[in-house]
Amino acid sequence: MDIKNMPLKEFCDKVAEKSPVPGGGAVGAVVAALAASLNQMVANLTIGKKKYVDYQEIMEEVLEAMEYSRNKLQEIAMKDIEAFNEVMKAIKMPKDDPSRERILQEALKKAADIPFELAREARNILRYCQNTCRWGNKNAISDAYSAAELAKAAYRIAMYNVLINLKSIKDKEFVEKYITELEELKNEVRGFYTDIRELVKENGFEI
Amino acid sequence: MDIKNMPLKEFCDKVAEKSPVPGGGAVGAVVAALAASLNQMVANLTIGKKKYVDYQEIMEEVLEAMEYSRNKLQEIAMKDIEAFNEVMKAIKMPKDDPSRERILQEALKKAADIPFELAREARNILRYCQNTCRWGNKNAISDAYSAAELAKAAYRIAMYNVLINLKSIKDKEFVEKYITELEELKNEVRGFYTDIRELVKENGFEI
Repeated sequence: MDIKNMPLKEFCDKVAEKSPVPGGGAVGAVVAALAASLNQMVANLTIGKKKYVDYQEIMEEVLEAMEYSRNKLQEIAMKDIEAFNEVMKAIKMPKDDPSRERILQEALKKAADIPFELAREARNILRYCQNTCRWGNKNAISDAYSAAELAKAAYRIAMYNVLINLKSIKDKEFVEKYITELEELKNEVRGFYTDIRELVKENGFEI
Repeated sequence: MDIKNMPLKEFCDKVAEKSPVPGGGAVGAVVAALAASLNQMVANLTIGKKKYVDYQEIMEEVLEAMEYSRNKLQEIAMKDIEAFNEVMKAIKMPKDDPSRERILQEALKKAADIPFELAREARNILRYCQNTCRWGNKNAISDAYSAAELAKAAYRIAMYNVLINLKSIKDKEFVEKYITELEELKNEVRGFYTDIRELVKENGFEI
């Protein structure tokens, strides 16, 4: 499924239909890409403006990081669909096939890995949203805040998708390792988002 | 700009470039459409399943409401860009033109109206997410939770976009009316989202 070249309306139709893919994982990757794009726009609208001359370098860094994330997210969206299809293939194997359980468990681990990558990218985007929310062009500040909301939503979507897969994984060590890493990510995300919400309030964008 | 037929990658590129449109408003409408689509998917995966026979009617209602929202959101995305362009046109009028201020104020009011419509749609979608989060197919429950995160993010994006326009509107009555209505919407959104977060916790999707 060539998501990146798919028209928006067609992608929505494919999500909505009675088939689990593309589902939350792929949608989460698309939303994170939209967050990165909005954040990039704010950086672009800040660069070259006299008033923001002190923040040019920071904004250049934002551009670079967001380009990197967007490329990564394209891969994640595709890989999420592939990983889900592998799980479905394993589930459909004959129940008495001795290799079924092993193949299913491997597919589930892979299916938990991909949204975990999404969670990391969402965290990275949110980190860079701090810069645009703090030092970005004030005329586009609502766009910086919007990018932050989307990055945070993408993080939570990723978390849900990791957790739904972990629920079927029997390797306790694997599950515990992932939960611990998710907790660390969650604390980082919470920290970045709390800072941004402070800026939102300070600038009168909270009612 | 024909957003609905635009390939996803191209839409992201257009958002990211050094031009304020498409910006947060159009992106918010697209994200709300993704929320509606995911919610629709969960309803579709619940309908016709024996285990969920008691909730067929509720899920049919979800389908109908999400179709309606998605059509509305396509319009909102287009109108958001048009409204912004009208504001820019007014800003570029000669400063000594006696009709400039009146035309600008009218354009700003229109530009606040469109994200307000988005806020209402996001609230509606979130209301219907309650149904899928509570009674939807458990195999797709992470998708129902994901839809809720996106609807809530779309609501906040809408709020930021209403507020950035209100800041330049001089008609105090208009501003106060909008702030009051936003407060009401915010309370509704908070109520729906709090309920959904309870379900998320109960089902072990919060770490």
